[in-house]
Amino acid sequence: MTADDPTWAVFKQQFDLITEISAAKTGQNRLVYSQNWVDAQTALIKFGQQAGLTVTVDDYGNVYLDFPGQDDQIIATGSHMDTVVDGGRFDGLYGVLGGLQAIINLRNQFGRPQHTLRLISFSEEEGSRFPTTFSGSKYYVHGQIVKNLTDQNGNRFDQARKAATSQLLALPQVIHERPKLPSAFTELHIEQGPRLENEHRQVGLVSGIVGQRRWQIQVQGVANHAGTTPMTQRHDGLLTAVDLIKHLHAIASELSPDLTFTVGQLNVLPNTPNVIPGKVAFSVDVRHPNNAILDAFETALNRSLTLFSASQLTCQAHRWVKDLPAKFSRQILDQNVKLTRQLGYSSIMMPSGAGHDSYVMNQAVPTAMIFVPSVKGISHAPAEFTHLEDLKTGILVLTASLQHLAYS
Amino acid sequence: MTADDPTWAVFKQQFDLITEISAAKTGQNRLVYSQNWVDAQTALIKFGQQAGLTVTVDDYGNVYLDFPGQDDQIIATGSHMDTVVDGGRFDGLYGVLGGLQAIINLRNQFGRPQHTLRLISFSEEEGSRFPTTFSGSKYYVHGQIVKNLTDQNGNRFDQARKAATSQLLALPQVIHERPKLPSAFTELHIEQGPRLENEHRQVGLVSGIVGQRRWQIQVQGVANHAGTTPMTQRHDGLLTAVDLIKHLHAIASELSPDLTFTVGQLNVLPNTPNVIPGKVAFSVDVRHPNNAILDAFETALNRSLTLFSASQLTCQAHRWVKDLPAKFSRQILDQNVKLTRQLGYSSIMMPSGAGHDSYVMNQAVPTAMIFVPSVKGISHAPAEFTHLEDLKTGILVLTASLQHLAYS
Repeated sequence: MTADDPTWAVFKQQFDLITEISAAKTGQNRLVYSQNWVDAQTALIKFGQQAGLTVTVDDYGNVYLDFPGQDDQIIATGSHMDTVVDGGRFDGLYGVLGGLQAIINLRNQFGRPQHTLRLISFSEEEGSRFPTTFSGSKYYVHGQIVKNLTDQNGNRFDQARKAATSQLLALPQVIHERPKLPSAFTELHIEQGPRLENEHRQVGLVSGIVGQRRWQIQVQGVANHAGTTPMTQRHDGLLTAVDLIKHLHAIASELSPDLTFTVGQLNVLPNTPNVIPGKVAFSVDVRHPNNAILDAFETALNRSLTLFSASQLTCQAHRWVKDLPAKFSRQILDQNVKLTRQLGYSSIMMPSGAGHDSYVMNQAVPTAMIFVPSVKGISHAPAEFTHLEDLKTGILVLTASLQHLAYS
Repeated sequence: MTADDPTWAVFKQQFDLITEISAAKTGQNRLVYSQNWVDAQTALIKFGQQAGLTVTVDDYGNVYLDFPGQDDQIIATGSHMDTVVDGGRFDGLYGVLGGLQAIINLRNQFGRPQHTLRLISFSEEEGSRFPTTFSGSKYYVHGQIVKNLTDQNGNRFDQARKAATSQLLALPQVIHERPKLPSAFTELHIEQGPRLENEHRQVGLVSGIVGQRRWQIQVQGVANHAGTTPMTQRHDGLLTAVDLIKHLHAIASELSPDLTFTVGQLNVLPNTPNVIPGKVAFSVDVRHPNNAILDAFETALNRSLTLFSASQLTCQAHRWVKDLPAKFSRQILDQNVKLTRQLGYSSIMMPSGAGHDSYVMNQAVPTAMIFVPSVKGISHAPAEFTHLEDLKTGILVLTASLQHLAYS
């Protein structure tokens, strides 16, 4: 099969159909368990049935499309069906339909595999409707599930879940169960960053997912009149926050050029031009593949809080995210490096700076990820784009990888 | 008359009566033309009539209480009756009732003056209800009046003004006119800053009002994913804003220790922990008695915008306030320095960092201001406080000053 194969038309047609379902507003809208989401998972089940695959749906609405092999081992691929609000067309869906396409490619070319080939469309990864992320893959691997969630309209997670999932289970020839775990999982995904484009590589072979820590930092000074308070008698929360941010940024730069450092949120009180800020709160997000670097940053951050506190000026930090770095299967990664080279594509090994279902899957089974370039690195926005040639390349690499895993 | 004189009881009683009217919530609430404001101006008119003073009210609701002299020259004192929302008990009202007390002191002790003594209670100075400030004193000096104003409930300024003012004009023995300007104006006011308290001085003799400039600065970068965008490929609006603020603060410190520099307002877009800020807007407020210093800051600020702009990162500034410094009457100031020393009080000469009705009056007539200490410099808040001894001291200095101006 080559990039000119007519089966691309099927992929393209399926892709357009599902993105059309979801184009309620300017971007893609498939919040988990919404009607768009039900329609999209329903469409996927039909695609699978048309391709002769076995359909299973579990209690969380994860959809499993199996091409049965000769033994009871399973080689899985897939990604998530949900999107953020007004998201792009490729985040998640590319890995679902690209994975389906890879399995169909293999069936057409090689027939029945040694191990079962499984496409998984996870229910939810984005955390855009309920305050939980990766709930689909977490359920599949029997991970920790957060209870009693409601969305911003007061709808309960369990109620929405049952109402949506029952529509999928009511479809003909759908098996209702949470199936057993595979012996390998590979996720195809857009990069959502600019690195592949900037370095002119066709494929990113993902070594793991960066560790991430997030703090809420609060600087408490004293609000006062901007005109009548002399400079030497101020306890200016914002000027202290500014110094602290600059200091933390310098620490991050020194520790590692790959340590991302982001102050994405900053709020000032009372936030009026003629009042010296009494209180400033800001977020700090750092990510790195090496946990020791994150430890070093945390130590330096805690030291800085004392350094920048003064009389009537206190700096405090609350860490509310500490995700350890994940290292993906070295064996599958090495194999994918070899296969990509054999196919003649340029690639780099890189960590993922964002979380994915693969982060959860990797805790239970050997896992790999394949990235394709995102134009200008834009994601989670209607302008998210990947060229068709790059989409094809990713699917061909995935096809080769699954062939290697399932047929030998 | 000494600080033990029984007339203090009258001042205290009047003060309590009017602050009681206005204690609708935790703080003082006399927004211009509100019912509290009408009740307070009505009470003041009655205080004036009980003291045998002539009452005049103009179309803006400014109240003038005259103790007629032997010629047609006028020596005036006063301040404003309005407050901010939930303001303190002393801002404005102290100068109104303190001025009345000074005139009554002089009448009791010296009888009819050479020049008419006038107490003015200006309608509005704070700009807390309508988007205008100093509208009372501006009307009195025939200054520029902003038209077609509405408050946040959609009430029109002119309608509110007429409804409130007509209630004052309906009181018995009230003359309806905008009277002629005085040959001197002195405003007694709390400092609203910590300087007198910190330097242990009883009186501040105000040399003028600082010049003030205010900018809205906008840093436009590119919003992007906090995890997947390498540090070298970011156009982080917040990190640039942080550098720019630090740079501007350093410039201000170098120019003059008396140049106040405040970034009171700062807003980030999209303001989410996991997104690199695409846009940051912040205010810059600088004040200094010397306009050349403000010019130098402005030149440096404009140079900095270019310095901190880069590819896909632009810094722009819009200046929306440029108030020139005001120098008060050197003659009255020198006289007040002398009188304060004779009375045995400690004083400093100081500029005012906040605007006052005196800023407007000074454009038309020789003007002076007398400050008394504000505990901890707190103002525009219920915690605003000045000790009774300090209130008395200020009134005694004002009395001596008015005596010097009106009786010789």
